[in-house]
Amino acid sequence: MGASAKRIRLDIETIAGCSASGPGTNRLSFTPEYWAAVDYVAAQMAALGYERETTPHGNTRFRKRDADRGEPAVAVGSHLDAVPHGGRFDGVAGVVAGVEIARLLDDKGVRRGRPYELIVFAEEEGARFGSVLAGSKALVGRLSERELAQMKDAHGTSYLEALVASGARISAAPGGECEPPNVASYFELHIEQSLVLEAAHIPIGIVQAIVGLRQYKVSCAGVANHAGATPMHLRRDSLAAAAQAIAAVEELAMASATGVTVGTVGRLVNEPNAANVIPARTVFTIDLRDTDAAALDEVAEAVLERIQRIAEARQVQARVTPTAESAPVVLSSRLRDALIRSAERQGIGYLEMPSGAAHDAQEVARVTDAAMIFVPSIGGRSHCPEEDTPYAATALGVDVLLGAIEEASVRTA
Amino acid sequence: MGASAKRIRLDIETIAGCSASGPGTNRLSFTPEYWAAVDYVAAQMAALGYERETTPHGNTRFRKRDADRGEPAVAVGSHLDAVPHGGRFDGVAGVVAGVEIARLLDDKGVRRGRPYELIVFAEEEGARFGSVLAGSKALVGRLSERELAQMKDAHGTSYLEALVASGARISAAPGGECEPPNVASYFELHIEQSLVLEAAHIPIGIVQAIVGLRQYKVSCAGVANHAGATPMHLRRDSLAAAAQAIAAVEELAMASATGVTVGTVGRLVNEPNAANVIPARTVFTIDLRDTDAAALDEVAEAVLERIQRIAEARQVQARVTPTAESAPVVLSSRLRDALIRSAERQGIGYLEMPSGAAHDAQEVARVTDAAMIFVPSIGGRSHCPEEDTPYAATALGVDVLLGAIEEASVRTA
Repeated sequence: MGASAKRIRLDIETIAGCSASGPGTNRLSFTPEYWAAVDYVAAQMAALGYERETTPHGNTRFRKRDADRGEPAVAVGSHLDAVPHGGRFDGVAGVVAGVEIARLLDDKGVRRGRPYELIVFAEEEGARFGSVLAGSKALVGRLSERELAQMKDAHGTSYLEALVASGARISAAPGGECEPPNVASYFELHIEQSLVLEAAHIPIGIVQAIVGLRQYKVSCAGVANHAGATPMHLRRDSLAAAAQAIAAVEELAMASATGVTVGTVGRLVNEPNAANVIPARTVFTIDLRDTDAAALDEVAEAVLERIQRIAEARQVQARVTPTAESAPVVLSSRLRDALIRSAERQGIGYLEMPSGAAHDAQEVARVTDAAMIFVPSIGGRSHCPEEDTPYAATALGVDVLLGAIEEASVRTA
Repeated sequence: MGASAKRIRLDIETIAGCSASGPGTNRLSFTPEYWAAVDYVAAQMAALGYERETTPHGNTRFRKRDADRGEPAVAVGSHLDAVPHGGRFDGVAGVVAGVEIARLLDDKGVRRGRPYELIVFAEEEGARFGSVLAGSKALVGRLSERELAQMKDAHGTSYLEALVASGARISAAPGGECEPPNVASYFELHIEQSLVLEAAHIPIGIVQAIVGLRQYKVSCAGVANHAGATPMHLRRDSLAAAAQAIAAVEELAMASATGVTVGTVGRLVNEPNAANVIPARTVFTIDLRDTDAAALDEVAEAVLERIQRIAEARQVQARVTPTAESAPVVLSSRLRDALIRSAERQGIGYLEMPSGAAHDAQEVARVTDAAMIFVPSIGGRSHCPEEDTPYAATALGVDVLLGAIEEASVRTA
């Protein structure tokens, strides 16, 4: 294992230790375990002369103490929050790659190009406050102070309240105005979270486009009644309605013409949830994704229409609330070309591919040039304790990124 | 409103106050609110000269202090435990009817027949320890001390531990040998929990048979993975498998030839339960009922076979555990005839009908003659906060029961 891979292993293993109890990694945004992970990264960066800045919206940014604050940076970013019972690599691999790049740049001595910056985005997963990419959306001005005050966790604590309560060293008042991003080129390394690279025996994916997303919360209200004494034809069973909707999400995603569409019901809560009571209230989520905007609209419309039909036929009320939405994003061809040149110069194999998952890069791409690379996920597993990526694979990703960052750092103005 | 109905109203309203917080009635077996309800009944019975006995298995029995303990009683029984967010009448109406009968017998002066007894059965709903009719099963010797020690609630506390911890005045050591029931004739009044009486405008149902029951717990184990990056055809989604099983339960119950079969999935718990993670573990219950034993066997077999087929097709593991089973029970024709004579003598309309719900009477019927009457449920609603029955309707039920009890109290030996 090379020196980079060894340092990456230590970083990832240390951050994995910053977790609440339970199987896998449990690190929701702004919890003590979350800040422990950020603090570890900050300590690594401080040793290289980087200053930590926590923005009013909870993102954490690192620039050299002596860097020109006004100059647009070449940035690497990712996130440290995790889904419940998640893995050690999702987000973390990208942040650790950014730390390792800072180390390698330092080894090379005095830099004459654009300043380098590392960004740790908050609440990428949406696992605590229910809305994905919250930190990067806030950075590019797509989430207001009022919206952050309204996003609540399961205990009713808002995003801003959690940020204040966590006592993080916030440079400005939480919720206040953000600095403009001030980034000239943005790179993100992420684990692939699927099986394509592994199956093709190719170490690096260079992302062309990120899928668009529609997320919904559906609340079905039926009528609770005795499971034995209520004839089948007189029932208004909210869970039976939800089950039919789950089947429809699966069916319609699979029937979509693009072959890329995915549809998932990941969360379901049933009430009163007793074996001998007909369910009266079932709440579930729907997650739909595609790289083709028109196909995504079409499948979303079909799913919602089907849910209303199911609800009507069963005399159950279905209330659908959109919880997240993003359009497919084509990434920067300038930075993609720089990544391709870097890989080719070093003789590292790569595959141009879409991203089936949402990433902070798609928000950053709204305000500046952004690019992404994937490193392979063993068995395609992600968002689970078994999530794994060889440390050497992340180190290879760092090599590809570093070449592109050096190219992008040359001042063009 | 007659004097009986007024007393019944006071009793039911007082017991409704014995509830944990939350919508509707929340009174799990052996909780402080459960014993508060039992204590209220005990105070009413004590005023009439009845002694309270808590059996080693947690049932509560009331006989006159001066009664011959060796002589088989004419008993009225029901339960005071409730499903979560349940109603005020399920079980309670039957216990309160038994209290009111004790009052009316007392008004009539010195009794020369068999002793009268009121029995409050524990854990009829199975809502705390997962197995219905636990108290009445224990009374007739169908649940051993070992089994009661193994039945656990959601916090891992066993039936016997909860009984000991509740500090109830238990006459013998919890879990020890029970007295034989020593009941010559058993009557139970219960709310109908369906729409038949209300639709027919008939005040009393006289139960011919009680449905048999099969309850199962099904654990589906799939593979957690990223909801965006995992193609549809590579998923092993435990919730999608459960949804298909729920649809199968509904379909097969409705297709059953008897027209009486009901099938319910009332409880479902999903993990890790996040919007952007493919579910890895989904646990749900199945509740199947019919008055026809062969039809019940057939639908149960079809459901279980279908679940295995669904699991195989999806490469999901499905583990099915039977949690409760009871055969259909035909009730005592001797006591049914006594109820019919009582109703006819008093000019009270009645309908002979099956019971779609399980009741303690079906366990008691294993060891002695047992009979049941129904009083109407408004809108057929039950196991929900809206559960309601006119107080006058329960009073009419008491009148029918009282006549039959007097007939059954005549010593025949």
